[in-house]
Amino acid sequence: MTEPPGHALAELQRRVQDLEDRLALMQILATYGPAVDSGSAAPAAGLWTDNGVYDTFPAVLHGRAAIAEMVTGELHQRLIHAGAAHLQGLPHLHVEGDRAVATAYSQLVLRDEATDSFRIWRTGVNRWEFVRTEHGWQVTHRVNRQLDGDTTARDLLREAVDPGPA
Amino acid sequence: MTEPPGHALAELQRRVQDLEDRLALMQILATYGPAVDSGSAAPAAGLWTDNGVYDTFPAVLHGRAAIAEMVTGELHQRLIHAGAAHLQGLPHLHVEGDRAVATAYSQLVLRDEATDSFRIWRTGVNRWEFVRTEHGWQVTHRVNRQLDGDTTARDLLREAVDPGPA
Amino acid sequence: MTEPPGHALAELQRRVQDLEDRLALMQILATYGPAVDSGSAAPAAGLWTDNGVYDTFPAVLHGRAAIAEMVTGELHQRLIHAGAAHLQGLPHLHVEGDRAVATAYSQLVLRDEATDSFRIWRTGVNRWEFVRTEHGWQVTHRVNRQLDGDTTARDLLREAVDPGPA
Repeated sequence: MTEPPGHALAELQRRVQDLEDRLALMQILATYGPAVDSGSAAPAAGLWTDNGVYDTFPAVLHGRAAIAEMVTGELHQRLIHAGAAHLQGLPHLHVEGDRAVATAYSQLVLRDEATDSFRIWRTGVNRWEFVRTEHGWQVTHRVNRQLDGDTTARDLLREAVDPGPA
Repeated sequence: MTEPPGHALAELQRRVQDLEDRLALMQILATYGPAVDSGSAAPAAGLWTDNGVYDTFPAVLHGRAAIAEMVTGELHQRLIHAGAAHLQGLPHLHVEGDRAVATAYSQLVLRDEATDSFRIWRTGVNRWEFVRTEHGWQVTHRVNRQLDGDTTARDLLREAVDPGPA
Repeated sequence: MTEPPGHALAELQRRVQDLEDRLALMQILATYGPAVDSGSAAPAAGLWTDNGVYDTFPAVLHGRAAIAEMVTGELHQRLIHAGAAHLQGLPHLHVEGDRAVATAYSQLVLRDEATDSFRIWRTGVNRWEFVRTEHGWQVTHRVNRQLDGDTTARDLLREAVDPGPA
């Protein structure tokens, strides 16, 4: 150690903070499925900021109340009472100060009683945007687009991995 | 740094330990599939404590020997020789001292020769309970319930994300 | 703290480095899918070393140019324009100095317009080998084998979790 110990400590603290940030963001993605699949409207909506947005098909949900209503709504309740899993994939993470972006696949898997199996109804791409708040990381904006051949989903994926025109 | 360096170091050590705990728990989930899908009975059973429990359908397995027998058993061997993957999702983690809980989806995906595809036979919820031992984290209890519309699986998910009645 | 502070700091730095390594390896797996599913040939190929190998069906790709050509090739382009997701599972990680191995499931999920669903075309096992370079971790070799009942895929899984004959 040639550097002053205070500097080395501060550098380590910064690195540990970055690791904690990444695990906290993963935990948010790992919370979403259990929250919505158990019909836990408040824990699901609470992942977002008060006026956070969930831009999904067929609606753009503005604010926690709208997200909670999606969870308690008729369509969603019907799905989870028949057997549904909202799976989130390993996220690609980009953290920059008090902002972060996670890009991850999601799947909506439904129980199919007739074949004693589950079918994948939806496979999509998600761009989750986060802000660091006094209550920890929260979602400001999530967009979910189906991988149905349309360019939109591919564009979301490309944004995460391609620094732009060379 | 206004705090004494010893205090700052101890605080960092605690934070790093927590991060290591979380990655170690993820690694256990990431080991289960490769162990059972390769028929590696001892590595699979060794994830549990000596008298650990795996509560799954159709049996509750008590202790490592019973878990190893599941892996070497006729049903499991038939599945893996036809092509099977026991997939574990991104876990929701709760660590408290020497105890921890991971809540995660699992899928059992089977090769279907006729359609040159794989079908999802089972999609379930798992609550993994861990204890820190001198050999690292080990599973004391795992319960796996199908997402077939029954309330049990949803209850396991809710326990992970909902702190209880408001 | 009875140990000299310099020693304790160095030990913490080593532990933090190990955690950073593991998250960096996860990030590589989380980058692969978004890169290939968006047709981003350079970001996909750039995960490998210059002369890295991707051993997959039906070809063994040698070097970044060959991997990039797979992404821009006719088969791959047709798949992603119809809707495709290359999903990577939670990796089992083994890090040793400047070398690392990740063992993880992968799935290739394809949009099926007729049934408004997605089918799992392929489920495989991947052994990713990495080297630490001046540009961070890079893939030297990846082998991908289908879980079609053949022993090869099971052997890859076993290697990750079984320390060998007892």
